[in-house]
Amino acid sequence: MKKTITNFSNFHWIDIENPTEGDLKTLDLPFDINENFLEDALESGHLPKFEHSDKLVFIILRAYTATPDERAIEVGQISNKIAFFVYENALLTIHRAPFDFISAHFEKTFDSVEGLVLSLVNEILLTFESPLKIQIDKMDELERQIFLKNGRNISIENLYYEKAKARLTKKILLITQNILNQFKVLDKSVSDLQDIKDTVLDFILKSDEIIDDSNALLNSYISFTAQKNNDVMRLLTVFSAFFLPLTFIVGVYGMNFDKMPELRWQYGYFIILAVMVAVSIIIYIWFKRKKII
Amino acid sequence: MKKTITNFSNFHWIDIENPTEGDLKTLDLPFDINENFLEDALESGHLPKFEHSDKLVFIILRAYTATPDERAIEVGQISNKIAFFVYENALLTIHRAPFDFISAHFEKTFDSVEGLVLSLVNEILLTFESPLKIQIDKMDELERQIFLKNGRNISIENLYYEKAKARLTKKILLITQNILNQFKVLDKSVSDLQDIKDTVLDFILKSDEIIDDSNALLNSYISFTAQKNNDVMRLLTVFSAFFLPLTFIVGVYGMNFDKMPELRWQYGYFIILAVMVAVSIIIYIWFKRKKII
Amino acid sequence: MKKTITNFSNFHWIDIENPTEGDLKTLDLPFDINENFLEDALESGHLPKFEHSDKLVFIILRAYTATPDERAIEVGQISNKIAFFVYENALLTIHRAPFDFISAHFEKTFDSVEGLVLSLVNEILLTFESPLKIQIDKMDELERQIFLKNGRNISIENLYYEKAKARLTKKILLITQNILNQFKVLDKSVSDLQDIKDTVLDFILKSDEIIDDSNALLNSYISFTAQKNNDVMRLLTVFSAFFLPLTFIVGVYGMNFDKMPELRWQYGYFIILAVMVAVSIIIYIWFKRKKII
Amino acid sequence: MKKTITNFSNFHWIDIENPTEGDLKTLDLPFDINENFLEDALESGHLPKFEHSDKLVFIILRAYTATPDERAIEVGQISNKIAFFVYENALLTIHRAPFDFISAHFEKTFDSVEGLVLSLVNEILLTFESPLKIQIDKMDELERQIFLKNGRNISIENLYYEKAKARLTKKILLITQNILNQFKVLDKSVSDLQDIKDTVLDFILKSDEIIDDSNALLNSYISFTAQKNNDVMRLLTVFSAFFLPLTFIVGVYGMNFDKMPELRWQYGYFIILAVMVAVSIIIYIWFKRKKII
Amino acid sequence: MKKTITNFSNFHWIDIENPTEGDLKTLDLPFDINENFLEDALESGHLPKFEHSDKLVFIILRAYTATPDERAIEVGQISNKIAFFVYENALLTIHRAPFDFISAHFEKTFDSVEGLVLSLVNEILLTFESPLKIQIDKMDELERQIFLKNGRNISIENLYYEKAKARLTKKILLITQNILNQFKVLDKSVSDLQDIKDTVLDFILKSDEIIDDSNALLNSYISFTAQKNNDVMRLLTVFSAFFLPLTFIVGVYGMNFDKMPELRWQYGYFIILAVMVAVSIIIYIWFKRKKII
Ligand SMILES: [Mg+2]
Ligand SMILES: [Mg+2]
Ligand SMILES: [Mg+2]
Ligand SMILES: [Mg+2]
Ligand SMILES: [Mg+2]
Ligand SMILES: [Mg+2]
Ligand SMILES: [Mg+2]
Ligand SMILES: [Mg+2]
Ligand SMILES: [Mg+2]
Ligand SMILES: [Mg+2]
Ligand SMILES: [Mg+2]
Ligand SMILES: [Mg+2]
Ligand SMILES: [Mg+2]
Ligand SMILES: [Mg+2]
Ligand SMILES: [Mg+2]
Ligand SMILES: [Mg+2]
Ligand SMILES: [Mg+2]
Ligand SMILES: [Mg+2]
Ligand SMILES: [Mg+2]
Ligand SMILES: [Mg+2]
Ligand SMILES: [Mg+2]
Ligand SMILES: [Mg+2]
Ligand SMILES: [Mg+2]
Ligand SMILES: [Mg+2]
Ligand SMILES: [Mg+2]
Ligand SMILES: [Mg+2]
Ligand SMILES: [Mg+2]
Ligand SMILES: [Mg+2]
Ligand SMILES: [Mg+2]
Ligand SMILES: [Mg+2]
Ligand SMILES: [Mg+2]
Repeated sequence: MKKTITNFSNFHWIDIENPTEGDLKTLDLPFDINENFLEDALESGHLPKFEHSDKLVFIILRAYTATPDERAIEVGQISNKIAFFVYENALLTIHRAPFDFISAHFEKTFDSVEGLVLSLVNEILLTFESPLKIQIDKMDELERQIFLKNGRNISIENLYYEKAKARLTKKILLITQNILNQFKVLDKSVSDLQDIKDTVLDFILKSDEIIDDSNALLNSYISFTAQKNNDVMRLLTVFSAFFLPLTFIVGVYGMNFDKMPELRWQYGYFIILAVMVAVSIIIYIWFKRKKII
Repeated sequence: MKKTITNFSNFHWIDIENPTEGDLKTLDLPFDINENFLEDALESGHLPKFEHSDKLVFIILRAYTATPDERAIEVGQISNKIAFFVYENALLTIHRAPFDFISAHFEKTFDSVEGLVLSLVNEILLTFESPLKIQIDKMDELERQIFLKNGRNISIENLYYEKAKARLTKKILLITQNILNQFKVLDKSVSDLQDIKDTVLDFILKSDEIIDDSNALLNSYISFTAQKNNDVMRLLTVFSAFFLPLTFIVGVYGMNFDKMPELRWQYGYFIILAVMVAVSIIIYIWFKRKKII
Repeated sequence: MKKTITNFSNFHWIDIENPTEGDLKTLDLPFDINENFLEDALESGHLPKFEHSDKLVFIILRAYTATPDERAIEVGQISNKIAFFVYENALLTIHRAPFDFISAHFEKTFDSVEGLVLSLVNEILLTFESPLKIQIDKMDELERQIFLKNGRNISIENLYYEKAKARLTKKILLITQNILNQFKVLDKSVSDLQDIKDTVLDFILKSDEIIDDSNALLNSYISFTAQKNNDVMRLLTVFSAFFLPLTFIVGVYGMNFDKMPELRWQYGYFIILAVMVAVSIIIYIWFKRKKII
Repeated sequence: MKKTITNFSNFHWIDIENPTEGDLKTLDLPFDINENFLEDALESGHLPKFEHSDKLVFIILRAYTATPDERAIEVGQISNKIAFFVYENALLTIHRAPFDFISAHFEKTFDSVEGLVLSLVNEILLTFESPLKIQIDKMDELERQIFLKNGRNISIENLYYEKAKARLTKKILLITQNILNQFKVLDKSVSDLQDIKDTVLDFILKSDEIIDDSNALLNSYISFTAQKNNDVMRLLTVFSAFFLPLTFIVGVYGMNFDKMPELRWQYGYFIILAVMVAVSIIIYIWFKRKKII
Repeated sequence: MKKTITNFSNFHWIDIENPTEGDLKTLDLPFDINENFLEDALESGHLPKFEHSDKLVFIILRAYTATPDERAIEVGQISNKIAFFVYENALLTIHRAPFDFISAHFEKTFDSVEGLVLSLVNEILLTFESPLKIQIDKMDELERQIFLKNGRNISIENLYYEKAKARLTKKILLITQNILNQFKVLDKSVSDLQDIKDTVLDFILKSDEIIDDSNALLNSYISFTAQKNNDVMRLLTVFSAFFLPLTFIVGVYGMNFDKMPELRWQYGYFIILAVMVAVSIIIYIWFKRKKII
């Protein structure tokens, strides 16, 4: 456990990193905390939540922490929880993972608890920005792969995991948006809160786009494969339709019957070659009419 | 029927396990109960509900009871009903199946009916936790099977039943969530209720994830199969395209016509071998250009 | 037209079965009825509705009347309308089809119009119970058919019609639920009304399950078929890949060129048999590596 | 432009058919009209709308005008706009296309503007009735085609256009329903308005059914085709698996090696025939076991 | 940066085109602006938003700027932002791209800030009109391509990008609609605002139609391809089923066994030709019965 106390002009901030259950219980806090809140603060997979009692506001948010290549598709895998205990003159934050943006805030100046909370919330949301950007780039890459004329097969596996990640990101963001709508702030902070809400809406739209693009890409890919199947099968059919009859004909005159008049004809061989050319032409015309070739 | 009466400091609790209709009617209860409520309490497949009359609050909830391998996809198969009759100074619970967590509550201490009810409701919800975890693990296993390079066919049947189970779990949880939103509790219990609501939201998200993953997996699988079909068909086409023409050529010179000049040529055999090599090369080049091989 | 008047202690009930337009106009009713209501009461395909004027409440509900095997997929085919004109001291019901549960009510005792109406509404809803049960059983049968290892093809036609029926049932039930939410009843009937609402919710959930299962089953079936296609095609490819080259080789030595050195070799035949065995082994190894067999 | 003025007992109605922009501007109307309203009244593709200023209520509705076989899938193609300017003592209607039901209203009697408007609105909605009926019949025909055992291929094109038409009809009806919910009428007209709302709900349900049926039909058709593909491919595989080995065997004994012992055997031919029968039987048994035939 | 100041009778308008961050900070504005607003005004990809403080209303809208052939499928690619700072007696607009309709407004006359803002908003929305029209035409072209009997393959790629563009357009329009619903205007402008709202609804419907048509088209195309696959495969099967048995038969009599009685028969050759005709007829009848040809 790492405990950092920062004193601002008219309030103080206690940040606790990676506490154990024991740590929290023996923690000498200047205020008492509902047991439920402490439990939630420790539960690493807890969804974002907002709750207020008479003395404090309790908020849980999740910051994006997965690396781009992780196949992380569970809430606890792609994100880490930060719990806020917001008092009149104090802020207590509890989180398991270390966050650079939290340390950075130790050095800044804030003239109200609210200002500090909003600034931290803003940073939490910004952790989603770069992963979403990377996902959008990956989708563009997948698009290029599938629509490039000579492209190789796309990775359905990557598509599946990118979509699952975007879906989960969207769900976390939707719950976060719901929580932000319950925030009540002083007039001077209204615009900062709105800015945060704008960011969430923007990210929700982006994750939605990734999900929709994934669906559309997979459907396009299935359609493409069906079309390629058709092309290959048509080719096979054309080859077979030309050679099966011809091979049959030459097979006939390869039979060893004692009495096969055609074999004795002066121009039998040439006549049969002509017949085969004729058969090929007829098949060719028939295929052309049927629009198969 | 098994009837357990527990007396707490300022209220008492009557728990009735597995009653028959007759049992309930002859039951000597210290309070009278609306007939509709008694009927509902006996109907084993009843959905979660919340209703309050002037004297009591009547709640039905469902605890998850299916074993992981059961192909249980009906409300009455995956879960069992627990009915609560909540009075000012008394609680009556009726359920068909025995539940360990109920027996465990006989030994605990509660200072209000509300406290006991919330604790039981919490336990009811926690019966969903482990089955959801098992389902998530099964989905991960199915994911591995399908995306593993040398993997065997996935079990579409398992996928179907896992999805159906998750869908049903989600529906029960959504109705439960709706009921929890109708609960009105004293200030000191607000946080406990919120904790229960958080749990429901978390489980709903999890069952939702299983459903979404199932859909995505099946689509990925269909796409994979289409791709494999294409690969196999291309292989067949390549084999046929090479050997059908060659077999035809050797068939021609297997004919028994008396007069076939080529057969008499000194190097006829070698010339025809050369022709066949040339034909193969041409087909090969053509296939390369068409990007079929 | 069949008209039945029943007198209860403090109200009376007029039930009219299968009236013509003329019947209704010449009907000697002790109260006057809005023309629109009469029209609606006669329109056999009318959707459930709720409307109240100053003197009466006008309700239309639909009872399920299709037999299980009917391919009835229109509102007017799967259900029959019952119109209620609810007055302070009187009830007028109009319906085209005869219903056993209505006749049964002539013999019962009710102490208020409301009590009678709720009892009839309850019976109307219960007409949906058995058809839904039968549909759920049919879905289970279809599930068994598709997932049974040696099962035959499922009937896509049955699946289509079961789904259409369930979808329509759900839509009627949703409109009915909406209407029930507009009912206003005396305190003593609140619980009866809630019981009816519970039933509707339960049936909506069930029809929803049938629809979801149908979708999932069809997708599973498509996936299954794609997999079977792959299996059959692989088999064909394996057969062709083995025999096409071999047949070509034997074709070569079936040619009748005067000068074919191999034909004169002492062990030519045995050498060529050995070559063919070698070719087969090579193809076999290649297939094994490519995971095709 | 055709202008018809009808005087009723306590109000008058001006109907204008097919006006040009110029017509409207020079129109000598007994009341002045907001410019925006006039513009909307002229814009032929305008969606249904409801707006009220202090002096008048302005309504735009759309009547269905496409013929059943038209591939009309844009708002302006399937329907025509009618604009209502509703004053205390006057009604002005503007529309481009002639409508029989409007002319018919010139001869009727109405005792209020409201009564006339509701009657016209009712007629506008009834223009959707017959096209929906025709579409439902077409869907039934498509269903018969696809599910008939010996049926021919369905027209995917028709399915596509019927669905697009139903989707557009539903959207227009949904906007219309939204507008009707903004109508405020006198007590005596409440029931007439409700009747119109019932009609809209009924039509929305019908168009919804057509859309759902289209989706289900196309999926059923894809599933059917996949199944037929499997049947045909299995047939091909069976044929190939039987004849490829046999043709290879006869090819072997068609080779012209000088030294092929079997060819000299007394019963070589009959032995080889027996071998081929044996091979066929083995393949047959293998296929039976694999459930391919 | 280009700064244009226009003075109207009772207010003035400052339009700033393509400012840098520095420009904005050193800008000598007659009023002070919230820092958050300035930041948003500079962020080029910002979604539409509406916010009001005590002194001003801050609005961001996006005008469509992509050319028809661009594969622009991100908010910042298909549209450009215009920020409005609306004061009692002044309007400040900030945008990066030059817009003809803005310059055109410098010459017009407006008697209120509100009038100018609504006129600009209207023009912003009209930038969506022509791209939507072009997209609808492209969809019609794609429809023709797929449903034309002899049509070539459709471009799945185009379909994918048109759909993505329409989806994004719809999302921007939905956010815009949400913002317009927050506008509060004077009575005399109500109708102008409603006109703008009508336009947005119309465009949302249109983009929705493009999305729905894309989905339906891709599904139709997949269905078509499956059907064509079936046709080609049936053809292949028919060819193989006819020639494989015949080729086997002629292969039998091409064997070189010393003792093959049939070869010596006077009419052996003709008998075997007759047998082959018979085999062909049997296969033909069998195929006819199985409805394969
Ligand atoms: Mg998961
Ligand atoms: Mg993209
Ligand atoms: Mg997931
Ligand atoms: Mg911002
Ligand atoms: Mg920002
Ligand atoms: Mg932003
Ligand atoms: Mg999509
Ligand atoms: Mg089910
Ligand atoms: Mg997983
Ligand atoms: Mg908790
Ligand atoms: Mg908990
Ligand atoms: Mg929790
Ligand atoms: Mg239907
Ligand atoms: Mg079932
Ligand atoms: Mg009940
Ligand atoms: Mg009941
Ligand atoms: Mg029930
Ligand atoms: Mg489903
Ligand atoms: Mg307009
Ligand atoms: Mg369209
Ligand atoms: Mg139908
Ligand atoms: Mg009616
Ligand atoms: Mg009517
Ligand atoms: Mg009606
Ligand atoms: Mg459907
Ligand atoms: Mg995109
Ligand atoms: Mg179109
Ligand atoms: Mg306009
Ligand atoms: Mg509007
Ligand atoms: Mg418009
Ligand atoms: Mg669609």
